[in-house]
Amino acid sequence: MSKAPAHAVDFATWTAQVQQQIESALAAVLPAASRAPARLHDAMRYACLDGGKRVRPLLVLAAAGVAGADVRASEQAACAIELIHAYSLVHDDMPCMDDDSLRRGKPTVHVEFDEATALLVGDALQSLAFELVSAPGLLPDARVQLELVHTLASAAGSRGMAGGQAIDLAAVGQTLTLPELEMMHIHKTGALIRASVRMGALCGPSSPDLLERLDRYARAIGLAFQVVDDVLDTVAPTATLGKTAGKDAEANKPTYVSLLGLSRARELAESLRADALSAMHPLGPPANRLVELANFIVNRQF
Amino acid sequence: MSKAPAHAVDFATWTAQVQQQIESALAAVLPAASRAPARLHDAMRYACLDGGKRVRPLLVLAAAGVAGADVRASEQAACAIELIHAYSLVHDDMPCMDDDSLRRGKPTVHVEFDEATALLVGDALQSLAFELVSAPGLLPDARVQLELVHTLASAAGSRGMAGGQAIDLAAVGQTLTLPELEMMHIHKTGALIRASVRMGALCGPSSPDLLERLDRYARAIGLAFQVVDDVLDTVAPTATLGKTAGKDAEANKPTYVSLLGLSRARELAESLRADALSAMHPLGPPANRLVELANFIVNRQF
Repeated sequence: MSKAPAHAVDFATWTAQVQQQIESALAAVLPAASRAPARLHDAMRYACLDGGKRVRPLLVLAAAGVAGADVRASEQAACAIELIHAYSLVHDDMPCMDDDSLRRGKPTVHVEFDEATALLVGDALQSLAFELVSAPGLLPDARVQLELVHTLASAAGSRGMAGGQAIDLAAVGQTLTLPELEMMHIHKTGALIRASVRMGALCGPSSPDLLERLDRYARAIGLAFQVVDDVLDTVAPTATLGKTAGKDAEANKPTYVSLLGLSRARELAESLRADALSAMHPLGPPANRLVELANFIVNRQF
Repeated sequence: MSKAPAHAVDFATWTAQVQQQIESALAAVLPAASRAPARLHDAMRYACLDGGKRVRPLLVLAAAGVAGADVRASEQAACAIELIHAYSLVHDDMPCMDDDSLRRGKPTVHVEFDEATALLVGDALQSLAFELVSAPGLLPDARVQLELVHTLASAAGSRGMAGGQAIDLAAVGQTLTLPELEMMHIHKTGALIRASVRMGALCGPSSPDLLERLDRYARAIGLAFQVVDDVLDTVAPTATLGKTAGKDAEANKPTYVSLLGLSRARELAESLRADALSAMHPLGPPANRLVELANFIVNRQF
């Protein structure tokens, strides 16, 4: 994976392969549903398996490819990021947060199980993510592996994803400026996307220059991802999204569309894509998957 | 701290000093309440500061003392464990779990702030714990530091503390056997207490034999801690406990007292103390603090 070979599969085939690989890897790292406490483990598997675009794992593996990283290590890092993402969705869907009943076309965890179980599922998924990235010998250099753990922990916490959720909560019914909206998303979605790219790169030999260049890419697509989410929340039907459409507008939450209008929000996504691609340009063919992912994130219809 | 000096302070003075030390250390590692997102950071500080017996930090530092560990590393490990403990209390108090309004004599986080904030406080405290133990250069040997992280993650997750909570949920209104009740507490309280002792020891040079001996101690006092909790929940007034007394019996939760009666529950606590002390006996004076802690855990009135 360190170089893009001439016979590389096309993007759609590659994403399908990675999604399958991550599905199998998650199924292996999540405790069996038969193992006590069975209901908790069953609900953890329900929350993580059989669904999702696996955008963050795709980013981990694409960045790992650029760095010529070890496949097993980057797969475990990808699983850890996906567990953090999955836990945040489970908690975010709970009645005291977004109170959502549909996720990836299925009943949310607190609906399918119960609220207490949903709470514990999120808590235990977060712990499991850190168990994975701290596994003995995952990377040959233990100091780099500690950096992997530290990157994930910072991205998940109060100055990362959880902080973004708190800013989001405080924003309901408020009029935000564009910089304030950006600040919210840099935390809420951006932190974990940046961590995905960085963690993938840390799984292989990465110069500070490469890490910096990848981070420029990640900051741009992290924001683009959210802008496109807001656009899709406005224009896509619920059945396509696999979650309830129009929820944000209904909840009177500020979005890029409510602030900029549909047309300028789409322009912003395009301009962020251009930023991401320009950061990748000097890397040539090894960065092809990252380029394709930037295009996918901006062009997606779901 | 590596040896108990002849002029060692008495146990009460030592615990007061450690409690003060951990209070200061937690105040330093928790983000300032003025820092955005301010409400989240304010609530995180509310959940962790100015309260608690700090039993787990006392265990970390006492075990670190036996191993002749670095003071700063063991202090950070103690903070990490206490953050995990604090997060579990915040989530456990929420309406979908125990629905408790009083903790350490103060309104619980979801009462003082709101439910969504309580959910995020718990989530962010867990991340912060892993941020602390993965900090670059905390231990001279990065592989040992990874073991520190891994110990904490395993103890917190679905086969540790969060799993114990799930077993606890499932047990409400059930008739448990003594082994089933023990299985619940080995996870719910025991896992984090064992991790405390192990993490303290890992902060210094510890032989496998020392780790094994300390683990025998930790398993015994972990269970003793819960037996005594059940006894106190029966006999102590709410004002002394700083939390609502008699909740477990009222919720029809199985306890050591409901299963064994008060007198045999007290005998069990005594016998567990004897196990813990016998494991420490060959270590001599360096284990004095651990011996005193075992006595404190069994004799405490709150």
